[in-house]
Amino acid sequence: MAVPDPGAADGAPDIALAARLFDELRHRTGSSRGITRASYGLGEQIAHEIVRREALRLGLTCTTDAACNLYMTLKGAGAGPAIYVGSHLDSVPAGGNFDGAAGVLMGLAVVAGYCRAGIRPPQDITVMAIRAEESTWFGASYIGSRAAFGLLTGAELDGVLRSGDRVALGAAIEAAGGDTGALRAGRPHLDPARIGAFIEPHIEQGPVLVAEGLPAAFVTGIRGSFRHRAASVAGTYAHSGATPRANRQDAVLAAARLVTALDDAWQRLAAAGHDLTVTFGQLSTDPAEAAFSKVAGRVEFSLDIRSESHATLDLMRAELRGAVARIEADCAVRFTLGRETTSEPALMAAPLVAALEDAAGALAVPARRMACGAGHDAAVFAGAGVPSAMIFVRNANGSHNPDEAMEMADFTDAARILSRFCLRPLP
Amino acid sequence: MAVPDPGAADGAPDIALAARLFDELRHRTGSSRGITRASYGLGEQIAHEIVRREALRLGLTCTTDAACNLYMTLKGAGAGPAIYVGSHLDSVPAGGNFDGAAGVLMGLAVVAGYCRAGIRPPQDITVMAIRAEESTWFGASYIGSRAAFGLLTGAELDGVLRSGDRVALGAAIEAAGGDTGALRAGRPHLDPARIGAFIEPHIEQGPVLVAEGLPAAFVTGIRGSFRHRAASVAGTYAHSGATPRANRQDAVLAAARLVTALDDAWQRLAAAGHDLTVTFGQLSTDPAEAAFSKVAGRVEFSLDIRSESHATLDLMRAELRGAVARIEADCAVRFTLGRETTSEPALMAAPLVAALEDAAGALAVPARRMACGAGHDAAVFAGAGVPSAMIFVRNANGSHNPDEAMEMADFTDAARILSRFCLRPLP
Repeated sequence: MAVPDPGAADGAPDIALAARLFDELRHRTGSSRGITRASYGLGEQIAHEIVRREALRLGLTCTTDAACNLYMTLKGAGAGPAIYVGSHLDSVPAGGNFDGAAGVLMGLAVVAGYCRAGIRPPQDITVMAIRAEESTWFGASYIGSRAAFGLLTGAELDGVLRSGDRVALGAAIEAAGGDTGALRAGRPHLDPARIGAFIEPHIEQGPVLVAEGLPAAFVTGIRGSFRHRAASVAGTYAHSGATPRANRQDAVLAAARLVTALDDAWQRLAAAGHDLTVTFGQLSTDPAEAAFSKVAGRVEFSLDIRSESHATLDLMRAELRGAVARIEADCAVRFTLGRETTSEPALMAAPLVAALEDAAGALAVPARRMACGAGHDAAVFAGAGVPSAMIFVRNANGSHNPDEAMEMADFTDAARILSRFCLRPLP
Repeated sequence: MAVPDPGAADGAPDIALAARLFDELRHRTGSSRGITRASYGLGEQIAHEIVRREALRLGLTCTTDAACNLYMTLKGAGAGPAIYVGSHLDSVPAGGNFDGAAGVLMGLAVVAGYCRAGIRPPQDITVMAIRAEESTWFGASYIGSRAAFGLLTGAELDGVLRSGDRVALGAAIEAAGGDTGALRAGRPHLDPARIGAFIEPHIEQGPVLVAEGLPAAFVTGIRGSFRHRAASVAGTYAHSGATPRANRQDAVLAAARLVTALDDAWQRLAAAGHDLTVTFGQLSTDPAEAAFSKVAGRVEFSLDIRSESHATLDLMRAELRGAVARIEADCAVRFTLGRETTSEPALMAAPLVAALEDAAGALAVPARRMACGAGHDAAVFAGAGVPSAMIFVRNANGSHNPDEAMEMADFTDAARILSRFCLRPLP
């Protein structure tokens, strides 16, 4: 990957460094189909060794915590709260090279630019390589960042097993060099009062920036959700030709009415300014019972509703309840929504978002605000009381697949914004 | 089954005879789960032997044609066109005892009533036991009635195999005593000009008469259909939380919009007096690709639209085309409806329907008109130019299952209507 050096003397981010590390990561953790960096597995371990080696070359102070999160610090001029920049280095199986890693390498590129120019930032800047963010491996979210705040439980350490090799989380952490005794004690490594800001750069996992032709965005909030993973609607199987409309209890029609009712509600609430997504990702008649010439007696479906606002999620709960009651009466069917699982929305710090926008404006990099639909470690930092923000970098083809396509030109634009932001006083 | 004899001297239908034959059919063609009378198989053969034996006891003239359809004739006073009364004696596997058989036994009960009272009807009455109506066995519809009109093809005789034992249709007909040489020649056994009316009594296969508390109905037409058995809609899989509504190509939403659009059209056309059913019996996301947290990129579905009117079917084709075009534009998806298969609607003869209604009125038996949603041999007779009608008998739990539940009191009401009808001059 050949990238022009934007200049060593002016403190601009060292994009050539980042490009070289992306190549090394792809080479050493990749296979014929994408890259694989299992949480506390070989690929993640290699990735941590690579960035630590590079940080030591730059003269950064490197430490780890009990969960093997890696902290690479450039000393600042003042003693005030530090800026933390980072993301995770693990990946899904056969994933893409940029998800997570872009955040760590952007932090290193920014700090490397300061080092080359002899710039000392106003406060400490710590690049953090977080462990075990991808829930696909241990079925638990945000393991590394929660551990850093003392929030990992003993039950998780003993009870959750890695998919594939069935190694328990605690054993995997010990094997990577961690200290599960300290984790069990629940002692936080990070003190929120000592962190002025957490900035997580990350590739966008949706299509918005590609569609709008923008290199970057600033996240206003990480969407929370409520979900019904195993919902169903029961009607009555009946002869398709001999059963009049008034005598039907048609599960397909009832499910379709629910899908369109919630889509209508989405459009209505979006027009009123609400942040929202509504997804019926799975919806199926029963392959064993349904037939082309039978009114369907059963449909199973999943429902995933997300918003950065608690209030909007509550509005959608009410819409769902109302639609279900209406359709049950109209179609003589019975819905069973099943267990509701939730995740909490996390608002990003508005002053940080504004400061990032100011930096973009000063650099004439076009960017927008947007809500983030997927979970990220920034939600844990925000939940712990750390002012947090995310920079999204344009990326085609989504994430969690080998076809992720981030351009280094966009990475460079985002890194320049971050570099400028880190040299100003925190808002 | 103990049923009071409604009187031997007045010519009323011999319900006791029918009840006894229902019992014998159930006993000799039943198993632990329903009855099975395969087309040209053992159960159907036994059923034909039973009704032929009974017809001979009554003194009827019994003949068969090349396809082993059985004709049992009571001579009438005049030489005008005969009334044919009948239905089929085969059943689906593990089916119910009444589907088909009720029509043949009702004809025998009516004729037996005349015989006991020494009544000679104004024209010949032929009770016809039709072969091989259930398409589940040979994958072909109306084999017996089509053969009677010379419409069975050599390709069918050689090419279609019975499910299960894989016996070819021609070989099965020969084994039952038929003459495939005559069938191949295409010589019709029946001359439509010699048949004044074909009346097919049959249990209702839908829920209308049970719901409305009526013992019987007269069919105005047998619905034809157009069907898309393997349709699909293609969108794009995408992250459920990170993909805004405007960027989605959601196959579930598109399919739901199609289901509700055609249901809306159904309600609109029904309000304007159109006969119609609209059924999406199967509708599914791809189990291998769909996930709870992904916008669905593909849905497969079936569509079955029926009406007794060609014009209404054409209106619904236009509704389908319009909805597909609209939804493709709105949702950025692509529908593939696949092959359309059709069956022809068959109108019943309005004068016969009116005459049956007159008979019901005179007997104070409450009854209604309705369209018939399933195919029946009466459609073949109507297609051959024979004035045809059907009498539906109330029946709970649908048909093609062991839980069919026709009450003998309703059978009696319908038989009395038929008996009165057959003694009047044909309209």
